Amino acid sequence: MTDYRAPVQDMRFVLDHVAGLPGIAALPGYEEATGDLVDAVLDEAGRLAGEVIGPLNRRGDEEGSVLENGVVRTPAGFRDAYLKFVEGGWNSVPFDPEIGGQGLPWALSTAVSEMWGAANTSWALCPMLTVGAIEAIGAHGTAEQKARYLPKLVTGEWTGTMNLTEPHAGSDVGALRTKAVRDGDRFRIHGQKIFITFGDQDYTENVIHLVLARIEGGPPGVKGISLFLVPKVLVNDDGSLGPRNDLRPVSLEHKLGIHGSPTCVMAYGENDGAVGYLIGEENNGMACMFTMMNNARLNVGVAGLATAERAWQQARAFAMERTQGRDIATGEPNVPIVRHPDVRRMLMDMKAKTEGMRALCYYTAGRMDVAKRHPDAEVRAAAQSDLDLLIPVVKAWCTDTGCDVAFTGVQVHGGMGFIEETGAAQHMRDARIHPIYEGTNGIQANDLMGRKILRDGGESARAFIAGMAADAAAVAGSDNPDVAATGTALAASARALEQATEWMLATGPADICKASAHAVPYLTLFGNTAAGWLMGKAAAAAAAQGGNGANGAGAAWCAAKIKTARFYADHILSRSGGLLASIADSGDTVMALAEDQF
Amino acid sequence: MTDYRAPVQDMRFVLDHVAGLPGIAALPGYEEATGDLVDAVLDEAGRLAGEVIGPLNRRGDEEGSVLENGVVRTPAGFRDAYLKFVEGGWNSVPFDPEIGGQGLPWALSTAVSEMWGAANTSWALCPMLTVGAIEAIGAHGTAEQKARYLPKLVTGEWTGTMNLTEPHAGSDVGALRTKAVRDGDRFRIHGQKIFITFGDQDYTENVIHLVLARIEGGPPGVKGISLFLVPKVLVNDDGSLGPRNDLRPVSLEHKLGIHGSPTCVMAYGENDGAVGYLIGEENNGMACMFTMMNNARLNVGVAGLATAERAWQQARAFAMERTQGRDIATGEPNVPIVRHPDVRRMLMDMKAKTEGMRALCYYTAGRMDVAKRHPDAEVRAAAQSDLDLLIPVVKAWCTDTGCDVAFTGVQVHGGMGFIEETGAAQHMRDARIHPIYEGTNGIQANDLMGRKILRDGGESARAFIAGMAADAAAVAGSDNPDVAATGTALAASARALEQATEWMLATGPADICKASAHAVPYLTLFGNTAAGWLMGKAAAAAAAQGGNGANGAGAAWCAAKIKTARFYADHILSRSGGLLASIADSGDTVMALAEDQF
Repeated sequence: MTDYRAPVQDMRFVLDHVAGLPGIAALPGYEEATGDLVDAVLDEAGRLAGEVIGPLNRRGDEEGSVLENGVVRTPAGFRDAYLKFVEGGWNSVPFDPEIGGQGLPWALSTAVSEMWGAANTSWALCPMLTVGAIEAIGAHGTAEQKARYLPKLVTGEWTGTMNLTEPHAGSDVGALRTKAVRDGDRFRIHGQKIFITFGDQDYTENVIHLVLARIEGGPPGVKGISLFLVPKVLVNDDGSLGPRNDLRPVSLEHKLGIHGSPTCVMAYGENDGAVGYLIGEENNGMACMFTMMNNARLNVGVAGLATAERAWQQARAFAMERTQGRDIATGEPNVPIVRHPDVRRMLMDMKAKTEGMRALCYYTAGRMDVAKRHPDAEVRAAAQSDLDLLIPVVKAWCTDTGCDVAFTGVQVHGGMGFIEETGAAQHMRDARIHPIYEGTNGIQANDLMGRKILRDGGESARAFIAGMAADAAAVAGSDNPDVAATGTALAASARALEQATEWMLATGPADICKASAHAVPYLTLFGNTAAGWLMGKAAAAAAAQGGNGANGAGAAWCAAKIKTARFYADHILSRSGGLLASIADSGDTVMALAEDQF
Repeated sequence: MTDYRAPVQDMRFVLDHVAGLPGIAALPGYEEATGDLVDAVLDEAGRLAGEVIGPLNRRGDEEGSVLENGVVRTPAGFRDAYLKFVEGGWNSVPFDPEIGGQGLPWALSTAVSEMWGAANTSWALCPMLTVGAIEAIGAHGTAEQKARYLPKLVTGEWTGTMNLTEPHAGSDVGALRTKAVRDGDRFRIHGQKIFITFGDQDYTENVIHLVLARIEGGPPGVKGISLFLVPKVLVNDDGSLGPRNDLRPVSLEHKLGIHGSPTCVMAYGENDGAVGYLIGEENNGMACMFTMMNNARLNVGVAGLATAERAWQQARAFAMERTQGRDIATGEPNVPIVRHPDVRRMLMDMKAKTEGMRALCYYTAGRMDVAKRHPDAEVRAAAQSDLDLLIPVVKAWCTDTGCDVAFTGVQVHGGMGFIEETGAAQHMRDARIHPIYEGTNGIQANDLMGRKILRDGGESARAFIAGMAADAAAVAGSDNPDVAATGTALAASARALEQATEWMLATGPADICKASAHAVPYLTLFGNTAAGWLMGKAAAAAAAQGGNGANGAGAAWCAAKIKTARFYADHILSRSGGLLASIADSGDTVMALAEDQF
């Protein structure tokens, strides 16, 4: 397996020219996020990711996490790497200084997250889950709960988990059966949860579980769900650790990928009941979950990007080193396979899609910063509107595209790609989880269609698409022919998305089934276009720099950025007309068969 | 894991209405392939596949084949299933009666092969490789070699292997280093081969290896390669077994999928040299390999179809059984997930693509029968021309599409899809080998572009596309609106393919790099269109039957066939314009970057 090296150059370029980091650094509270600090953060994180976390990736896959005598043992090296990560203060990067965080913008913290995920998909899941716990407690916990749990979660001295799924309640959380019984001012939790990522670990002395359960006698469905904080080890009033709580990991799943990450079946309350503390109001658990959902979904989208970046680096290195066959044009024998046009096409495809994902993830994170910190309420609202629209797109499009890139990475390796020791197959297996968890991509598409397009009558979407169209026109006017062609393709794609959006708005209210049946192709069209838009903006910025780019983005680098955007336009934006046709011009075939006709 | 049941109804329909089996049964030598025999063969093969071979699939993945004390041990049950297969005479189905075969048409034998592959991808590889050995010996062996080896290979009492790849000679076979030293009228083989499928097994007492090697002092490159027959156990003149030959499996690969299939590193001649017998002429080994290539590539395409069919059956069963969430239109709670429009879309997508692959595979096999047996030389030549054109398309398109279908199958399962015990992930892992071996799909695309389109100045391709266009016009005239819409989409797709072909013909001679850089999208366009053409023909046939279909194809079944074709047209043929644009209207971006710009 090829070592991971953080693509600091592209990260910095995208932060500056796509995510708008210089503007974000002008917002109150983000003043520290200037160029020097950004460079230092990226370089230092890149070092930890490349030197410590990345080299554990293959071994983590081979060893896997195991359950021994009732406790999880993570793969060799995972714990040490985690302790270094905590020691370096990396866990606290995105959190507010009030709770002990470093208060850096989400845009920057997203770039840093990409590094952890690219270095080691499995390892990176533990801190990712802790973020969710911090968000939930921060938003809905009492002052006392915040004081007791947040500081150690923010530093990473403790980790967090999210417990939603049960055997018969996956996407349909409202069907859950875990019950909470009142016990004075706290609760006793009884039930079993599945698919709990890092439900236990050997890193830290405590794990803070956030658990969805139904208070005895509560209403059925989602309206009767409450959120509980359930520590692995109870915490005394003075902050010291008390007795073990009544919960344990029962077994670990045998999974296609992310073997290093322990996916636990968790049992709560097999004896007296696990002590749980209500977070937020009774029966308001779903709202508490939604609080952290934007962030969690963005993070999973970033994980899709991250695994793709790793797969791309691996394929690139192999294509440069591996010699095989003749140059088709010159006949030169035994050339590196990067000289073969179809291998080159695969590399360009991987590179273009990965850069498109990065642009979309960082841009969206930047909107989160603006929505949070901008002094002008209207600007905040506009950013929030974009953010709500983009979150399902980032989650689904970046994870589908991440799988696509990892699949192509295997193909670049030929027969060696199918051999596990090579490492390319691991990326494909690891990437496969991302379109599934944190809401399947089908659920994301329905969210985009229902909550984000139909609910406001298309207002947000129309505004967003109009913005893309305006930018497309500007990009199309570039002197650089590749940039201009990208702009032209983008303009056509934005028109197709606009038409598809109008079709959704016309169809959904009358026939929600039909709209929903086309929600995934619609999301794909949206993602292809939005990423292409940002690739076009990046290409225009690269052209404007004229090869005299700051931060080491020299002429050759800028030229590559432009050609990569053009490749994206030629090979991905070209699909938009077909996607529109499959949405707007199709027969009612999706729901046409009776179940017994399948 | 869901049991496999052979889709006999669709197989029979496609054989009759797409592959033209009734016409094939009128050809000399195929007179026995009448309806009753076809039904009996499909039913009996379906029983063996469903009851014996299929149930071993999951266990084969878990146990894998292992190398113990120098011999391969296949997973429990594999040997017994193989012996039943041989006992039932299934190994001999496609071979000529002169060599002990049953002489059934390739079209029918292809349907039967699909069953083995769908039941158990790993298990089915052993007989598939034996077919290649039989073809090579049959075409190029001496009368004595044929008499000595073919009978037991045809019955399946012995199995065969193909030994091409070496660590530094994969796609570039000409770089191989295995050497053959003359030793009287035979040779001594020395060298190591990798990726040898079923290079050893515990089924039979002998394995007949076909090995590419360079005779000492022979010319470099592909022009110095000869083909040798190297038995695991030497065969005496009286047909009895003699001493063990100097060859052995050294190790097994640790692979992403097909764990049941032992992929061997083989050592030849570690002591005195492995005894090998020249097959065909000296230095003519590549030509001998090409003899069997059409067949082998068709078979790998069929394996792509087969794994997709298995993945589809698994996803369909899960979607029918698994209850979760509310019906989006009626609000009914806890419905089977097949009621959710996006799940339905995924199922339709899997179904449509799988039926498209089946149509393309069986049609191509039918052309093989016509090319082999038709009394009119012109008709044979036309069929051979179609065949040569279609083989790389079948291999690459069906294997890419097979991976796509298996990927979607995982998604239908949600979180359960990522858990290995469910079985969906295995299909995705198993399917991943098909785009790689027997010539990577990039190599197939270059074969299509170079040998099949450019070499004859587009003559075969133009004729083939004109035939599709004529059929499209007929289908578009149907009274059934779904059939007609399919025909219209097909006509547009055929036009796009025609334009892309003209672009290839105009571009290739001047700039082979540029043509090659677009060879894969071109092949995808070709495959999408050709499969859509055959889906359209099948839909028209279903409509013509008016629901009074023979062989149990009743009204509901025919209606489903038509809707599935329409879905294919709406969702896959709609991509053709975009594919054409990415080929013909794109900038020269694939080769634009210098290697250090990646």
